[in-house]
Amino acid sequence: MHRLVSPTRAHRVILRLRRCTGSFVAGACFALSLNISHAASTATMPETPAVASSALSNVPAARVLPAWQNGAARDALLAFVADVTREGSPDYVAPEARIAVFDNDGTLWSEAPLPFQIAFMIDQLKAHASEHPEWADNPAFKALLAHDRAAMAQHKKALLDLLSAANSGMTTDEYDASIQKWLANSRHPTLDRPYTELVYQPQLELLDYLRAHGFTIWIVSGGTSEFMRVWTERAYGIAPDHIVGTQEKLRYEVRDGRSVLVREPGFDFFDDGAGKPVGIFRAIGRRPILAFGNSDGDREMLEYTTSGPGKTLALLVHHDDGAREFAYDKDSEFARLDKALDEAATRGWIVVSMKRDWKTIYPAQKADGTR
Amino acid sequence: MHRLVSPTRAHRVILRLRRCTGSFVAGACFALSLNISHAASTATMPETPAVASSALSNVPAARVLPAWQNGAARDALLAFVADVTREGSPDYVAPEARIAVFDNDGTLWSEAPLPFQIAFMIDQLKAHASEHPEWADNPAFKALLAHDRAAMAQHKKALLDLLSAANSGMTTDEYDASIQKWLANSRHPTLDRPYTELVYQPQLELLDYLRAHGFTIWIVSGGTSEFMRVWTERAYGIAPDHIVGTQEKLRYEVRDGRSVLVREPGFDFFDDGAGKPVGIFRAIGRRPILAFGNSDGDREMLEYTTSGPGKTLALLVHHDDGAREFAYDKDSEFARLDKALDEAATRGWIVVSMKRDWKTIYPAQKADGTR
Repeated sequence: MHRLVSPTRAHRVILRLRRCTGSFVAGACFALSLNISHAASTATMPETPAVASSALSNVPAARVLPAWQNGAARDALLAFVADVTREGSPDYVAPEARIAVFDNDGTLWSEAPLPFQIAFMIDQLKAHASEHPEWADNPAFKALLAHDRAAMAQHKKALLDLLSAANSGMTTDEYDASIQKWLANSRHPTLDRPYTELVYQPQLELLDYLRAHGFTIWIVSGGTSEFMRVWTERAYGIAPDHIVGTQEKLRYEVRDGRSVLVREPGFDFFDDGAGKPVGIFRAIGRRPILAFGNSDGDREMLEYTTSGPGKTLALLVHHDDGAREFAYDKDSEFARLDKALDEAATRGWIVVSMKRDWKTIYPAQKADGTR
Repeated sequence: MHRLVSPTRAHRVILRLRRCTGSFVAGACFALSLNISHAASTATMPETPAVASSALSNVPAARVLPAWQNGAARDALLAFVADVTREGSPDYVAPEARIAVFDNDGTLWSEAPLPFQIAFMIDQLKAHASEHPEWADNPAFKALLAHDRAAMAQHKKALLDLLSAANSGMTTDEYDASIQKWLANSRHPTLDRPYTELVYQPQLELLDYLRAHGFTIWIVSGGTSEFMRVWTERAYGIAPDHIVGTQEKLRYEVRDGRSVLVREPGFDFFDDGAGKPVGIFRAIGRRPILAFGNSDGDREMLEYTTSGPGKTLALLVHHDDGAREFAYDKDSEFARLDKALDEAATRGWIVVSMKRDWKTIYPAQKADGTR
């Protein structure tokens, strides 16, 4: 059965940690927001027919983007792809310039009640606690273990330092292995599925559709490339070298005659807000023609994309479906959609309503509970 | 006529500028070396038969790597590619993991008498002089204009600041246009050919050969991605998104309603030495299996590559051909090959002698002087 849940907000802990990087990219700040939910109530929804994107290849006459409702958003996507791929069209774009950039958290997969990478980092902190007896007396650590909201809010900075420390010191190979292990053994607290199953079915179809029309897809996300790389190829068909993300500090070292990269506490580059166009320029070297995001952290990426010459398209996922997923926008602590929503209206960006535009949210589960 | 020259060292100005980035990557330093030659004497060499790589496709039975002499270096390349591509071989590597990384300056094209990007930056400085009347009194600028070696050596830091200032302030689009214009209108001071013709014919053949065997090629260079991107696709067939380089500071800005990236003085990341494995990890996300460099700045990249599991290959171009190109290694001020040369002997890295292993250095010129 396809169980979808609506989280209660009653027991949610909001913890917002903000860092600015004055010395790196002017004006680029990184908001590490923890929104820790202890929601336990679930609401079972009726089953929704879901179409796996892989099934399309055997059905030549199938309606494209089947999980997308008829409407302005789907129409805009189809029209845009037709315009830029039709030879002789004034809007024609050569295949090598058909660059599409997608935010990840909240755009390609869910991000509530807290971004999944933060959930992983908290679990790493707990897993490494036995190696750090000194943490026992750390008020931030005690607050986290006790789910003491007030105390956690009081010790934000100490908690961020702890998370950073617990997620450093190891080699990148060791860290990759711990991410893989965590993903294999963890389930979303309320949706009760492995995190990598909480990808959006309509977006999987869109990625396939764009690729079939000669587009190259990049993820441009506030999460770290390292966290995404271990699963994005399997989940989205996006290779490790097509991910632009926040960059952790790394130290080159030779251990027992073998070269390794060791994770250091802290970050060198925050791929969020005004950092996203910078990350795009550095990694891709071309201005995208399509950008898809879901929060104010994507605003500059959409502006940069739509400032290019020729036809462009910008879209925002609007999380307005509290019944099937989560509902949040202007007041969200972890992924605010406020200024970008206002800008969408004046700039002709397409706002995709999860409630109205998407027939299904997640891929169907198999009878045995797997996809 | 194919004219090759041997520069005299008599009038060379050595200017070495060094910056360390303590706050960025631990231990990563950037040596911006200026080695300004006023060599005027040229030596005409006999014409050398050159084979353009594009000619290979129509000659099915042609000897592969025709510009490479028979010998240990060519044998090692052919054996390595055969081993990792033969299905069933214990050394077989799947195509997606066939990552080859090449340094650029001195490995894919010449870098003497000074790295070509530095020549460009100096020309930018001169071109912008009229907008900066205050430079007239700057002793570093006066020394540069007067070719006053002693004064330039005395004002290294001021000269670096000037170069940085003269190469910032504009948008990335404007800067790209100035690079293209410079490349189209500049010639090497002694070899008297456009810079983009000073690519190595044996390496063009090797890139083609590796691609034909399923390898993906990346440039990993101490130069900036931005400087390389505008010409590497035409010169090497390497796309803008397959270049890992030093990263200039960038500022996101909206000008007249249009998003641009503005160049700021200074750099955020130095892709040299211990920075190269970091750059590789961040951009590619996989450990390469083949690495080709030519100086101590490539040492950690070669170590990192050969520390991977399975069969790997590391190579160094040895600039030992003062007659056809330039001769330098342990005493070079701009691209020292010292520690890496010693390490090659103990680690089994292949040292490619330009004199012994390469039949030709540059692609043949056409009768009208173009390629």
